[in-house]
Amino acid sequence: MALLVQKYGGTSVADLERIRHVAERIARTRAAGHDVVVVVSAMAGETNRLLALATQAAAQPDEREADALAASGEQVTAALTAIVLRGMGVPARSFQGHQVRIETTNAFGRARIVRIDQERLRGVLGGGVVAVVAGFQGVGGDGSITTLGRGGSDTSAVALAAALAANACEIYTDVDGVYTSDPRVVPSARKLDRIAYDEMLELASLGAKVLQIRSVEFAKRYAVPVHVRSSFHDGEGTWVVQEESTMEEVSVAGVAADRDQAKLTVLGVPDRPGVAASLFGPIAHAGIVVDMIIQNVSADGSTDLTFTVPRGDYEKACRLVETIARDIAARGVTGQLGIAKVSIVGLGMRTHAGIAARMFEVLSAEGINIQMISTSEIKISVVIDEKYTELAMRALHDAFVPPAA
Amino acid sequence: MALLVQKYGGTSVADLERIRHVAERIARTRAAGHDVVVVVSAMAGETNRLLALATQAAAQPDEREADALAASGEQVTAALTAIVLRGMGVPARSFQGHQVRIETTNAFGRARIVRIDQERLRGVLGGGVVAVVAGFQGVGGDGSITTLGRGGSDTSAVALAAALAANACEIYTDVDGVYTSDPRVVPSARKLDRIAYDEMLELASLGAKVLQIRSVEFAKRYAVPVHVRSSFHDGEGTWVVQEESTMEEVSVAGVAADRDQAKLTVLGVPDRPGVAASLFGPIAHAGIVVDMIIQNVSADGSTDLTFTVPRGDYEKACRLVETIARDIAARGVTGQLGIAKVSIVGLGMRTHAGIAARMFEVLSAEGINIQMISTSEIKISVVIDEKYTELAMRALHDAFVPPAA
Repeated sequence: MALLVQKYGGTSVADLERIRHVAERIARTRAAGHDVVVVVSAMAGETNRLLALATQAAAQPDEREADALAASGEQVTAALTAIVLRGMGVPARSFQGHQVRIETTNAFGRARIVRIDQERLRGVLGGGVVAVVAGFQGVGGDGSITTLGRGGSDTSAVALAAALAANACEIYTDVDGVYTSDPRVVPSARKLDRIAYDEMLELASLGAKVLQIRSVEFAKRYAVPVHVRSSFHDGEGTWVVQEESTMEEVSVAGVAADRDQAKLTVLGVPDRPGVAASLFGPIAHAGIVVDMIIQNVSADGSTDLTFTVPRGDYEKACRLVETIARDIAARGVTGQLGIAKVSIVGLGMRTHAGIAARMFEVLSAEGINIQMISTSEIKISVVIDEKYTELAMRALHDAFVPPAA
Repeated sequence: MALLVQKYGGTSVADLERIRHVAERIARTRAAGHDVVVVVSAMAGETNRLLALATQAAAQPDEREADALAASGEQVTAALTAIVLRGMGVPARSFQGHQVRIETTNAFGRARIVRIDQERLRGVLGGGVVAVVAGFQGVGGDGSITTLGRGGSDTSAVALAAALAANACEIYTDVDGVYTSDPRVVPSARKLDRIAYDEMLELASLGAKVLQIRSVEFAKRYAVPVHVRSSFHDGEGTWVVQEESTMEEVSVAGVAADRDQAKLTVLGVPDRPGVAASLFGPIAHAGIVVDMIIQNVSADGSTDLTFTVPRGDYEKACRLVETIARDIAARGVTGQLGIAKVSIVGLGMRTHAGIAARMFEVLSAEGINIQMISTSEIKISVVIDEKYTELAMRALHDAFVPPAA
């Protein structure tokens, strides 16, 4: 007998028919002798509907009130799920964040979980009752309703699993699990049976979008085994777990691409202390998130500085950088929209030498020019011309990711 | 400077445009130097939508969960109203029942308010902030969300006004106030400037539907002055207040009719102790609310017993009573659907003799036969053939209600 936390996303609870499917799965889990804590998102589209109401109500809706508004979506799903379960004869009880209670910071719209009171849920579970918890929400220090930000229900689920020392946190979604690459681009992409937290973190930040990145950080910190699986069938999905010795055998766990990238280069930047700060300070202040930064060694007392920004911030960044370039007496600014970042991720990189060299070889053999390179301990990213994205992904996947056993 | 509780019903907050109107009124009240606590209902139709979801989710939705579901409607309105207010520069803050906190019994769907913690609201008001409270809801002893039953937002508002010792509780609605009769039936019906709690209680129970009856009981118990007024203009509505000496001058405050009535007569009931109990016990047990009961003095060791039930329960009551009639050896059962109860209500009846006699005269002059009569200290009701309802109302109104000064 295990204690399982099951999280169902918006598409899995989109209407009463799907909620009934979810309830049947919960009933089966319980019938198999397990204790179950369920975490639900708002019905698909509901959070957007509520937030649209908020922005119609005021140009800049108050954040506390927007959270109180948005949190009602998960409350509805939790109550409906409990009603369906009880209608099927399964004892169940819904809980809002404040009822659990899930204490958070008061940072509305992006609150962080501070503490979870597990006593109440333990009492409920001890009575053989399924606890259905509204995801995405908590209660701030002053009793205000808070929300955890987009995808926050993943974090709710993992945090509850951590607090209750659950045997696993199951994330039910509309895909089968975590893939070695995007199957729509790379036909040979396959589902991973297991992936390490650190690998998942790198893949999540690269746009794999299966799990909210904060939930993976939480899972890693508290060593919560996370099982990403389909809500449409009973097949095993992907386990996101602590690094294991057997994982080392595979050098690369996945190949990811991010097309939401644009590149700016400041030419002939005078090579003196403080120049980088005077460039990136105002950009950060304008709320633009800079991803990769490349600065070559100075040759003639000046250097070229290249960096990437989200595509939507490109125009704004250009205007800003052109002003700064004049101020710091740089030679000029060039930029490019049509680029993509392609990355390979794997724990094995730590011990397998030559992965980077081989990556560059593979791309070169396809005639793909590398514009920028960035590396971390378990990841290598390259920026290339956007039109080569799919070709690069397929070539790298074929070269690095072994076929399923 | 006063402390005012303002309650806005579902039609007053039906969409964002109406919520903006409501917010402007609140802003004006605050600009006039008053502290304001606002109580809002769910947007029109929303409670029905949520409860329909519940009954689609399960044939007999769990009551606790149905309350958690339904309470989300008021939460949405409260947050949206606060967002609009803040967008207009008016400091405001939304509160759910458990945040206030409004403690209730655990009788889901019909919870009763036990205690209101006024400290938190006082602190908010002290800071010059408008408190926007979700009506209709509270928190049970175990932390569960509860609702107060249909029209419960009126009760929320009056209870808050009582707890805060507010100067008045303003109930904003889509009518101008409380009328001496239904203006669609009685053209000379006029708005009352003032009405006593007891009169309002009798009128509310007779179907006047302006105020939820429990809110009037609450207002009476705590002597809360209630001002029923239109949310569409600034004119004075009707004050529901404690009995005043000047009120005695008017003998009848209003004429009301209730068409939701059906009549059953058990003929030849043996006149022995316990017979009434054996008849009405099973009826109450079946959840049928009996309104008027008439039993004549026994003549030949048996009597006829007539009573009224809601029209929707007529068939059920007939089947039940026919069985019982056989058991108690009564002679038979007859019944009639097409009846109506017409009532006149007024404090003045206590001191003005002959009101009942005059009422019967007025009806007789119109050729209307009286089938049943029931009286209380401040009310006389008669059951008549339904087709005479409007005629009776107009005749009684002309005879008893003085025209406006």
